[in-house]
Amino acid sequence: MEQNTATKPIRCKAAVSKVAGQPLEMEEVEVAPPRAHEVRIRILCTSLCHTDVTFWRLKDFPGQHPIILGHEAAGVVESVGGHVHEVAVGDTVVPVFSAQCGDCPDCLSDRSNICSGLPARPGMPRDGTTRFSFAATGEPIHNFIGVSSFTEYTVVDVARVVRIGPGVPPEKACLLSCGVSTGVGAAWKVAAVEPGSSVAVFGLGVVGLAVAQGCRMRGAKQIIGVDLNPEKWDIGKRLGITDFVNPNDIGEKAVSEVIKEMTGGGADYCFECIGSTSVMAEAFQSSRKGWGKTVVLGVSSGGAPMSIPPHDILMGRSVVGSLFGGLKPKADIPILAQKYLDKELELDEFVTHEMGFHDINAAFELLTQGKCLRCIIWMDGAKANGVEALDNGRACKA
Amino acid sequence: MEQNTATKPIRCKAAVSKVAGQPLEMEEVEVAPPRAHEVRIRILCTSLCHTDVTFWRLKDFPGQHPIILGHEAAGVVESVGGHVHEVAVGDTVVPVFSAQCGDCPDCLSDRSNICSGLPARPGMPRDGTTRFSFAATGEPIHNFIGVSSFTEYTVVDVARVVRIGPGVPPEKACLLSCGVSTGVGAAWKVAAVEPGSSVAVFGLGVVGLAVAQGCRMRGAKQIIGVDLNPEKWDIGKRLGITDFVNPNDIGEKAVSEVIKEMTGGGADYCFECIGSTSVMAEAFQSSRKGWGKTVVLGVSSGGAPMSIPPHDILMGRSVVGSLFGGLKPKADIPILAQKYLDKELELDEFVTHEMGFHDINAAFELLTQGKCLRCIIWMDGAKANGVEALDNGRACKA
Repeated sequence: MEQNTATKPIRCKAAVSKVAGQPLEMEEVEVAPPRAHEVRIRILCTSLCHTDVTFWRLKDFPGQHPIILGHEAAGVVESVGGHVHEVAVGDTVVPVFSAQCGDCPDCLSDRSNICSGLPARPGMPRDGTTRFSFAATGEPIHNFIGVSSFTEYTVVDVARVVRIGPGVPPEKACLLSCGVSTGVGAAWKVAAVEPGSSVAVFGLGVVGLAVAQGCRMRGAKQIIGVDLNPEKWDIGKRLGITDFVNPNDIGEKAVSEVIKEMTGGGADYCFECIGSTSVMAEAFQSSRKGWGKTVVLGVSSGGAPMSIPPHDILMGRSVVGSLFGGLKPKADIPILAQKYLDKELELDEFVTHEMGFHDINAAFELLTQGKCLRCIIWMDGAKANGVEALDNGRACKA
Repeated sequence: MEQNTATKPIRCKAAVSKVAGQPLEMEEVEVAPPRAHEVRIRILCTSLCHTDVTFWRLKDFPGQHPIILGHEAAGVVESVGGHVHEVAVGDTVVPVFSAQCGDCPDCLSDRSNICSGLPARPGMPRDGTTRFSFAATGEPIHNFIGVSSFTEYTVVDVARVVRIGPGVPPEKACLLSCGVSTGVGAAWKVAAVEPGSSVAVFGLGVVGLAVAQGCRMRGAKQIIGVDLNPEKWDIGKRLGITDFVNPNDIGEKAVSEVIKEMTGGGADYCFECIGSTSVMAEAFQSSRKGWGKTVVLGVSSGGAPMSIPPHDILMGRSVVGSLFGGLKPKADIPILAQKYLDKELELDEFVTHEMGFHDINAAFELLTQGKCLRCIIWMDGAKANGVEALDNGRACKA
């Protein structure tokens, strides 16, 4: 059946954000066929990440409306455009916001994962257009960071598509397309944490908890979680956090002072997983002189710069940033998927909720209220045991 | 003769800074004998570095007066205190402001050169006192960053003393105790510049020119010098600079824009050698996305922090700071000295002026007017061919 649709538009359901900050609306949309180097994907499930919420709320550019948000997903290739040889109809894939064209100086270097062949821009990467429109009016709908997964079908450039082996369940595979990979990658690739290290993780959302897990896998001996939500201590313990600091519980002291006391002078590695420049500065202050490294992962929506006192950086400290944890999607996601199958990489703990597509706005509420890590949103009929059986919005665990 | 003085105070000449920013005054001072772990050194020659000028001008702490400034020098061990086995009377040595105790976690790690066993503090590192006083009154005179080389004799902790083989002339050896080592080390150790790299060096004083030389030795193909003084282009060419940007000559453009154009997107490595936080920010902006690394070497005297836009650091850029170019003095200075003897490391070009000790204030004038790189100040009778033969203040080379 799927091959019959190959060169034609598909009409399907999508959850469209029409007005910044207002509930998504379930709409019939038209999804154009894939052009050259593009892949049309039937989404099986998608999860919701803070970056979706950030852009959902943004009234002005880079916020755009109407838009189909979503960028953590797993799906099956429905059809491919010209020059696509890497994946075929029926393959299970995850789309990734970060491209890997394979040809540019960045993709050819092992020092960079920021593809300069297909840099981030609004719309499809090769022509800036969109493949989405309202079925009723033909009015175009914006694409979100080259992925747009809150729809039954989407079109993604092949440079952003990664094939996943059949053994990984889609609700675990989709976690590898952003948050978990970003955190684990930052610990492994960007920081290259060594056995015995001390680590401080600022912000225990999915990214921060994945950092903790990545550091544990690397043999860090002390992994301090910093979060305002005391409930993060319990889940954190299961993923590698050995100590917990709640900034509300330390009186007049700065978090950096507390961390310096706990580590005997500062953590070897500090990770900022929130996107707050003041937390970035605090993370930097918490890093050890001589070799302390601060890794910035959080995407800041504000305009304030990060502030570094020159004397403190002269003392041998460093700051490094990364998108997608320094991972090259096509090279590294299959490695993480295999580590999941080998039970070396924990993914199940990150899925705290599951629901059907029609309840997607409930997922936004859970995330904005800090009540979930990842909520998996299943397309109708896509969950192996039937999504209708789900008590929508119910927590799976915790 | 020297051994006779071993346990006694020595009276000698020193150039004392009594009032911030006022000419040094030649005074008779008393230099106490070395205590345990200390070495008394007869200075042969000393050079003048911008950090001396910075502290000479500083009225308030960390500026201190009266003080004996100077921290780039070469000398001969006159006597040693208890527990000193590493150097002996008669050894040629250079003192270094940065310690290497050999026992602390930093000295034992190859990731740090910031000794935590003897951290920077005013006065002698183990007790905070000074070995200097005015001969006439007994009033104490402050020690400068553990070295104080503008005196015929000084006392330095053995953790800050490096033995130099007899083949290196003292006026070259003294350059290894700060500026040249800092620049070369930053290129080699902190940045670890690879062959074929593009580099931008902000500020072409001795440190910046030594960075250029270090990058050239590492095979960098494009080494862009940035300086307001057009005369730096000529000397720069001799030390590795391949391109020159004068911020006064580029109209409305930012330096970072020009460097991005020259390098096709940004330099692989940027070095800030001035100590200006706005230049640090410009250097960061000039670095390539994906892997651009900015190395901060300049010591800032102001309080303003360095400012990093979080979006730009997320694109895989990094910032790292270092003191003394990431070098461990005792381990690395002998390597540099050998490279000088092997004619791999250029030192002669950095010596633009020589003069006698009594003309030391003229050296301050040359440096503050931007007319010299390093001015060597010879103690009386210490220059092999006789310092009196020098036309004091005269340039040795352009």
